[in-house]
Amino acid sequence: MSINTSIPKGTRDFTPEEMMRRNYIFDTIREVFQLYAYQPIETPSMENLSTLMGKYGEEGDRLIFKILNSGDFMGDLTPEALRDLGPQKAAARMCEKALRYDLTVPFARFVVQHKNEISFPFRRYQIQPVWRADRPQKGRYREFYQCDVDVIGTHSLFCEVELMQIIDDVFDRLGVKVEIHLNNRKILTGIAEVIGYPDQLTDITTAIDKLDKMGKEKVSEELISKGISKEAVLYLFSIIGISGNHEEKLEALKKLLAHSETGMLGLQELQTVFSYLYDCGIRSSVILDISLARGLNYYTGAIFEVKAREVSFGSICGGGRYDDLTGIFGLKDMSGVGVSFGADRIYDVLKELDRFPAETLTGSRILFANFGGVEERTTLKLLDYLRKQGVPTEMYPEPAKIKKQFAYADNKKIPFVAMIGTEEIANHTISLKNMRTGEQRTMSREELVREVRGD
Amino acid sequence: MSINTSIPKGTRDFTPEEMMRRNYIFDTIREVFQLYAYQPIETPSMENLSTLMGKYGEEGDRLIFKILNSGDFMGDLTPEALRDLGPQKAAARMCEKALRYDLTVPFARFVVQHKNEISFPFRRYQIQPVWRADRPQKGRYREFYQCDVDVIGTHSLFCEVELMQIIDDVFDRLGVKVEIHLNNRKILTGIAEVIGYPDQLTDITTAIDKLDKMGKEKVSEELISKGISKEAVLYLFSIIGISGNHEEKLEALKKLLAHSETGMLGLQELQTVFSYLYDCGIRSSVILDISLARGLNYYTGAIFEVKAREVSFGSICGGGRYDDLTGIFGLKDMSGVGVSFGADRIYDVLKELDRFPAETLTGSRILFANFGGVEERTTLKLLDYLRKQGVPTEMYPEPAKIKKQFAYADNKKIPFVAMIGTEEIANHTISLKNMRTGEQRTMSREELVREVRGD
Repeated sequence: MSINTSIPKGTRDFTPEEMMRRNYIFDTIREVFQLYAYQPIETPSMENLSTLMGKYGEEGDRLIFKILNSGDFMGDLTPEALRDLGPQKAAARMCEKALRYDLTVPFARFVVQHKNEISFPFRRYQIQPVWRADRPQKGRYREFYQCDVDVIGTHSLFCEVELMQIIDDVFDRLGVKVEIHLNNRKILTGIAEVIGYPDQLTDITTAIDKLDKMGKEKVSEELISKGISKEAVLYLFSIIGISGNHEEKLEALKKLLAHSETGMLGLQELQTVFSYLYDCGIRSSVILDISLARGLNYYTGAIFEVKAREVSFGSICGGGRYDDLTGIFGLKDMSGVGVSFGADRIYDVLKELDRFPAETLTGSRILFANFGGVEERTTLKLLDYLRKQGVPTEMYPEPAKIKKQFAYADNKKIPFVAMIGTEEIANHTISLKNMRTGEQRTMSREELVREVRGD
Repeated sequence: MSINTSIPKGTRDFTPEEMMRRNYIFDTIREVFQLYAYQPIETPSMENLSTLMGKYGEEGDRLIFKILNSGDFMGDLTPEALRDLGPQKAAARMCEKALRYDLTVPFARFVVQHKNEISFPFRRYQIQPVWRADRPQKGRYREFYQCDVDVIGTHSLFCEVELMQIIDDVFDRLGVKVEIHLNNRKILTGIAEVIGYPDQLTDITTAIDKLDKMGKEKVSEELISKGISKEAVLYLFSIIGISGNHEEKLEALKKLLAHSETGMLGLQELQTVFSYLYDCGIRSSVILDISLARGLNYYTGAIFEVKAREVSFGSICGGGRYDDLTGIFGLKDMSGVGVSFGADRIYDVLKELDRFPAETLTGSRILFANFGGVEERTTLKLLDYLRKQGVPTEMYPEPAKIKKQFAYADNKKIPFVAMIGTEEIANHTISLKNMRTGEQRTMSREELVREVRGD
């Protein structure tokens, strides 16, 4: 019988081995978020379509998964009207709901909806999947998790530094050396002003955001095609190409942006951030990266991007400050800042570097072989004893051939197999086989607990 | 400005307070699953529509949320064809994907798809949301979590008992007294045979499944409307109404079902389960409930349902054995058994009984007041010190009025507020206010850690 058991393209099943590794990442991130006293929230997978549409640009609108209204989804729409509307508008008539595209817009909606219950500044984290109808490719999925941490309701630049401490702590615990790239949107505004194209900030940031992927030449072409003069493009590249440590860069920018009020404000913000950083002291290197743009238009201050130092995987975490994210839902003056950890990319980095701790892989510590009858009944009591000591354990559920039972332990990488036969019952002992060394010994149940726990 | 910030009906936002309580439930369930050496898996939120359709009955098909194909969803569907097909069939042409309706069908699909990587018997747990286009009402949502635990690939009745041990451990840890109702589908088959309607098992189980909600009279009417004679209905009620402890019930059934081979097999299975239970010993009462039917047709052996003893909330956990769940995907002879914990119902029970431990509610243990300048800089070092000791802590991000900072701590129920002024800096001390008692003292940082930890 041949039945299709595939799953939609761009989605994934996670096996126990993958799940245990993924949970190791999520648990580490969650622990650090909690240590910094951020609090969890969750929002529904589905939002009203109107909440999401128009928030991610034209391209984003197309990538939103829409949910067909249940029952008679056509309503008063005739089939002919449906054709005349075209796919996009017709979809909006048949679908009231859609799957969330990121955690940022739902977070803004949440803050506005619950503003009277929330204590501001509101420190929240959120770890949930998001969905995008993107073309699937290596490392890009249609369903993936985001781990967002934000504080909203304060302009304090200390928050920027706290987020960098969180980044630093997370990757230190995961054993990944990272560099944090830092820039400020106001500096980019300043640059757009001094090169003579203050109204084309979006064109400029969208283009330089692609520098890493496309290279200087293509980005230059794109900028020129948007009507920016060749001279201005060269001037732009000379500014974002300034070299040196952050103090030298800030010094150089101070001269270049002297006539841009916004640019100077951005420099001042950066200087405050670096002075806080000096007091806090973090292990990761923080690089002032003037070419860092980040495509999203809602950023208004600091922007971050994190890269692993030992492998080239692109950004594994990123974020920034936004001054008016909740404005789209009618709540003004709510400045916030946040970062998002990319769990899938972090997984790939840890796998590539072989940095998953061995213990993330173990499920049970010990399998009790099953010989049926009285032997089985004696084993039942021991299972209970071990679990009360906190040892994850299982018994093979039926008295199968011993070879089969050992193969099961072997496949599942269970480190110990215990056997209880007539002799063991008489002497109140257990025979324990260490599956790694092959060594087999007879011992008391107290000794067994110490042995399998690795005390 | 008035902008709609609502969420789709039947869905929910979870605030930090709710999340921390929910996580307490999920963490408890997960810990017990792991102690019994069940391993986590996850499946995609979206399955192919064809994987889900036809698995939950006609009513179920209608309750599946379908996802509109992206791009040109009309494909070669003409307006005329659309009209002729009607909503259900048209939806199937415009939607290839749908949101999962439960965790059981995706689990069966997973087992078949990954059968060559899995070590059988396969012990898995899965904690993920499911979606149903049900009419929302009190306690019934369109998005809710299921916590499923199953073992597949063995007929061993020991697994039934292990699942009851898991149920027992979970509710013991949560502090909820429960009774486990147990029955066996084969007994129901036997009853259908002896009352003379062997072919109407589904009608019979569907009807008696509603006994709790609808009462004897309505169920009786339903059975008669399905063509079952009044005498048979009376006979049925007399059998499922047998009273006594499980031994007395088994004794009585043995006589009544003597002529049903399947019924006698069911009795034998129950007897084995009770004898394992005797060896394992669990705290919850296990009740042999002959009227327990459970609507789902894939159950073939044991069926369970768990009820809280101190409140009437209906079933908070349920499950059973299935002999051919993977058969729909082409893999025969895969008997399994599993139960599903209803996190939302458990939440309601704990809330009603006021059994959430107080500590689930705390985020930060301590807020550092912010006085700006040198005081702020001194505080930064202390934050770091406390976090290294594992104490969740935060600093108010800006030097706001002290009244505002205290109000923030109060709203968030943070138990301690620390203050560092000129004097404290000079003496290397901290002033700590206990927000519950109002007491304020000056102390060293080591003393501070002991104090806020509650050592």
